[in-house]
Order: sequence, then structure tokens, then C-alpha cells
Amino acid sequence: MSEPISGPAFFIGKGDDTLISFGSGQPDLPPPVEAFDILKTYTSFKYGLVQGEQSLRSALASQYPQATAEHFVITNGASEAIDLVLRSISVPRGKVLLPRPYYYSYPFNVLYAGMTPCYYDLDKNGKVDFTVFERIVQGCVAVMINSPSNPTGTVQDIDTLKKIEALCDKLGVYVISDEVYKDIIYVRENYLIQGSRVITVNSFSKTYAMCGLRVGYAYSTNKELIEKIVEMKTHTAMNTSIVGQVMALAALSAPQSYIGHNVEVWHARRDLMYNGMRELGLLLWKPEGAFYVLPKFKNSGRAVNDLYYTYKVITYDGAWFGAPERIRFSYALDATKIQEGLRRLKEFMGKEYASY
Amino acid sequence: MSEPISGPAFFIGKGDDTLISFGSGQPDLPPPVEAFDILKTYTSFKYGLVQGEQSLRSALASQYPQATAEHFVITNGASEAIDLVLRSISVPRGKVLLPRPYYYSYPFNVLYAGMTPCYYDLDKNGKVDFTVFERIVQGCVAVMINSPSNPTGTVQDIDTLKKIEALCDKLGVYVISDEVYKDIIYVRENYLIQGSRVITVNSFSKTYAMCGLRVGYAYSTNKELIEKIVEMKTHTAMNTSIVGQVMALAALSAPQSYIGHNVEVWHARRDLMYNGMRELGLLLWKPEGAFYVLPKFKNSGRAVNDLYYTYKVITYDGAWFGAPERIRFSYALDATKIQEGLRRLKEFMGKEYASY
Repeated sequence: MSEPISGPAFFIGKGDDTLISFGSGQPDLPPPVEAFDILKTYTSFKYGLVQGEQSLRSALASQYPQATAEHFVITNGASEAIDLVLRSISVPRGKVLLPRPYYYSYPFNVLYAGMTPCYYDLDKNGKVDFTVFERIVQGCVAVMINSPSNPTGTVQDIDTLKKIEALCDKLGVYVISDEVYKDIIYVRENYLIQGSRVITVNSFSKTYAMCGLRVGYAYSTNKELIEKIVEMKTHTAMNTSIVGQVMALAALSAPQSYIGHNVEVWHARRDLMYNGMRELGLLLWKPEGAFYVLPKFKNSGRAVNDLYYTYKVITYDGAWFGAPERIRFSYALDATKIQEGLRRLKEFMGKEYASY
Repeated sequence: MSEPISGPAFFIGKGDDTLISFGSGQPDLPPPVEAFDILKTYTSFKYGLVQGEQSLRSALASQYPQATAEHFVITNGASEAIDLVLRSISVPRGKVLLPRPYYYSYPFNVLYAGMTPCYYDLDKNGKVDFTVFERIVQGCVAVMINSPSNPTGTVQDIDTLKKIEALCDKLGVYVISDEVYKDIIYVRENYLIQGSRVITVNSFSKTYAMCGLRVGYAYSTNKELIEKIVEMKTHTAMNTSIVGQVMALAALSAPQSYIGHNVEVWHARRDLMYNGMRELGLLLWKPEGAFYVLPKFKNSGRAVNDLYYTYKVITYDGAWFGAPERIRFSYALDATKIQEGLRRLKEFMGKEYASY
């Protein structure tokens, strides 16, 4: 999941080699070769099961404790998974609790499902303050958890996640855990939130760099909910692209070193980005996962514009993510470009920005 | 668009060669070779435009009068197009008028969009009675038109379609025209319903036999509406599979004879099916388009079950399509199988059915 494409379209800046884009939230590293190899002899064209190919769901099941293929629905990316989950559990105008800063689609997803977004602010370390969470979650239908987070780059403490898990279970509140960055964590292993009202949302977009192929999934041990989602998807989309699913299955067969290598690259870029920004005097959370930094910037909207028009640097205004006076930088671009981008940022900060 | 997959899952009957399936609404004829050739060198993986690839939308624009690429949104099949259109024009509990018999997803699509389905019955010839339509459309937010129709196989008269076009324009009622079978018509050319509140829904599934690849689109000259759909899709699914879109574009480049040849095959099967059923004494509309017949059957539910369990013939109960006491037969299977299916049907009718 990525891009505020509702933001200025020209920010995509295709075909201009002098542009440095910290905008896009998509890996530049290629998918596993296995995903493309399979295409050379690909010939299928008929409908697949709405729930997703059995082979793909079985392969995914082996990655989750006590899971079976029945616990999964393959979706058009994590976006469709979130849309279907929210619509399936929808209670008219029911409250859905979102962390702030949030992934920019969440409020829309909640509204589109006929519910009402409500928010709690992450603390000064970009973490969930459980005392705040505990108070505000009362009366909610569902909460969305996003760890590692887009756009903050923070990873929630396991202790906090366990407390959220237990509290929501007690309250009967659904937990929609968006774990699309679960394989890009620098500080620990991913912690899988579990429970009968937990739905894990995941994707092949980040781990396997398959953004445009739109293969994601919802996982839940709540079979009744999974059936509801499948029934809805039967009418709203039918099966997820069968060729995408075959590519996803092939990606899973890639050697584990594919993921390990990518994480090393992300880690090195994270250091480059974080240290570079600190040297510029910016205040930001050190990313523990995903590939974003969200430094503070006064007049962020103006800064985003100036950076684009004068310095040809694409960034996203934090306001799109519920984080005014911050700017999101994705570091999904190679080290040379990151360095050039930081150089331009330094120039900008020394000139225009100083006068804001 | 096809299959009541919410129907008995075993009816899919994979891997049993003795089964004759009149169930599935998907072409057995293969897609153009061009669609697969493109895969041999395919390497793209990044996000595409949410609205769809410019090249594909431009190619489609050349098929519609005065259309430009901006008038199209490429979707995950016609299903997603209908879902997004209805959600984009949704008025809480607003009425959406459906013909009955209807494609089985329509009522769900309307309900999922927070609106209320209402119905008018097609007349004894499977046609729209405009006098009835005119009365019942008053106060509706939108109407769905489906010509050629799944499941009736009938094609509406151009005169009627023009009257619907004018009336809905006058009343300010949206017309969602599902024309996925527009290239499979035996009686005339397709008539494109037009107007500022008209949305045409189409697909590569039937014309190009690409059901499982899930590429469809919404077309409208109402740019405000198209923008609304794109904004919604940004949050609910993002771009339609980029590999599917590349295959769809390649399919469009296939020689026109691809479509012409397929229509000849459908036509011959139509004759075989229709004549065969008439010989069995069944009452049915002669299909003018698509690839379905919907003969009358007393105790249709029981007949569907007996046909499956005793005669290994898959059919769909008309009740799923708002047509009780009828059964839908798809003739998307080759002539030999159609003949064998008709033979078994004859046997069934001479034995069990006579005693119903």
C-alpha cells in the first residue's frame, strides 16, 4: 500500500531523470526472478476460486501458526483486504480507532465502509501509549494496528501489542493488523497479533516488490468472518488475478536469502537517511521498520512545494497522514540518489527554509 | 462476470471428466495468443496509475464515440466497476432499479453500496416493458441495464434502450449499463447507451476469454464521476493488476477475426442448445446474445440437484437470478459436450422429472 495519488499527480514525475523521488512507497529492488520465470509458460485464463488459489493459500498457511488454507482470502493487494474486512464487520456509523499519524487510506476506508474513524495520537516516540489507547478504544467496533508503520517507521513494543491483543479480545473489538512491512524490521522479529477477532492484513507488495501486481491477503482464524469476506468478494471483484497469484506463489519459492538481502539494503539506506537527516538538524524517529522517515518541518506544505519546484525533490506532506508539520520521505531509492537528495535538501534548508 | 459461487461449491466439479457443466459462465475458447505472447518478456512490477494504464485507456477510447482516455477506469473485472460505480453514486437507502431475472450479483452490489434494490419483471419475451419501467423508475437513484442479459440471453430493442436513455436523462437517474456481452450478439450490433449520467461497464472476460485475469472497466463521459471512482479505488484497491492490463492491451491488438470466429462458435452452440431444448419440449427464450438459456422447470431446485447427483450435469437454479421455476444453462462448452448434456437431460426428463 502506498502513495497519496490523491496528492498532486505531477509528483509522480515520470521520465524526468533529474528528479529525486522520496515520494513513492514502493520497493525499487526487483521481485524474485522466480516470479517472472513462471510467466514464460503461463497459459491459464479461467476463473479461480474467489477465496484464492488453494496452492497459494496452503503455502501461506505454512507461515502462520496453526493456520490452514481456509483461514486466508487472497485479495487485490492489502487495500482490498482492508476494504473488505471493514465492510464485512461494518456497523452503521460504528467507530474504528486509528493511530495518528496513519496510513493515508485508513480514514477513507473506514468512511467508505459506513463507519466513523476516531483517532489517538502516537506518543513522542511514535509509540502507542496504552493508557490512552485503553481509554479511547471503549465502544469501538474495531481498531487498526500498523506495525511497522507507514508513515512513522516505528515498530510497536511486543508488550504493548500483547496488551492491545488481550484488551480487544476482552472487549470484543476487532483488531485489523496491517502487517505489510512485517518482513522489513530492523529491531526484532515481527510479532503476530492473534485472536478470534483478529484479522491480519498482508501483501506481496513490500516483501516481494510486487506492488503493481496487486496480490495481498487477509488472514484470520475466524472462519465465519473469512466466509463473509469471500461472499462479499464474490460480488465485488471475484478472484484476485490468477496470474498475479501464480507469480506470488513463485515468489514464495524464492530462497530465503532474497528477503534477507533486501533487508540489508533497506537497513543500510535507513542508516544513510537517518544519519543524513540528523546531520541536517532535523527531528525524526529512527525507523525500526518499513522504509519511511517523517521528520518535523515547519510549513510542511510550502516545503513540499518548494522542494519539488525548486529542487526537484519529491516528498509527501505529513498532513496527508494526519501529521501536519512533518514530511514523509520514503527511502525506496538507491544510495546514490539518497545522497543527492540529501544534498539538495541541505541546500534548500540553508536557503528558502531558513526564512520560513 | 459469472458463477453463483455462493451456490454449492462442489458444483465446480473440478477434475471429474464425466461431469457435463452447463454451470460456468466463462468462455472455454482461449484468449488471443497475443495476450500470452507478451508474457514471455514481461518484467514490470511497480504501481501503475490507479485509473489504469494510459495505453490501454487510449486503445479503449478509440472504440467509443468522442471518448478520450480520461473517460475510463480500468477495474478488477466488471464486478469491481459495478461496485465502485454504485458506491460512488450512493445515496443512503436510495433505490436502484434492476430487471428481473437479473445477474445474481446485482442485488448484493446495491445492498453493499448502502442502497435498496427494487425490481421490474421482464415481459413474457424477456424484454423490458417500457410502460412498466417508466412507472417504476420514478424516484430511483439509478437503474441497471444488462443487454445482452445474463441469465436471459435476450437483447433489448434499440427503440426501448433509446426511450430508457431519454427518460433517465430527463429524470436525472444514473444508468449503469452492463454491456459485458456486447461482442456476443446474434441479432444486431450492440447499441451503446449514452448520456451524462450513463456509465458503461465492460470487461475483457467474455470478448477475450480472460475471466480469471480480471480486467474490466467503467466508461463515462461524466468526468466528475470518473474522478470520484478513481479516488475511491485509490483507497480500496489501487491499480488493477498491471500484468493483466498489459495482456488486455495485447488482446486488443489481436485481429478482428478473433472475435468474429468466436461469435460463429457461440452462434452454432446457441442453435444446438436452443433447438435441442425445444425438441425436449422446454419453454425458453431464444438467445439473442451472451451464452445462456433459461428454460422453465417446475421444482427447479430439486431438478438442479437431481441433474447433478444422478446425471452429473451441472446447472444453476434460476432462483439465484430472481427466476424461480427456471434453470440457467450456460453453453460455454463444446458441441460434443452439449450433445451429451442434452442426452442426459432427455433421460432425466423421461424418468425423475416426469414424476415431479
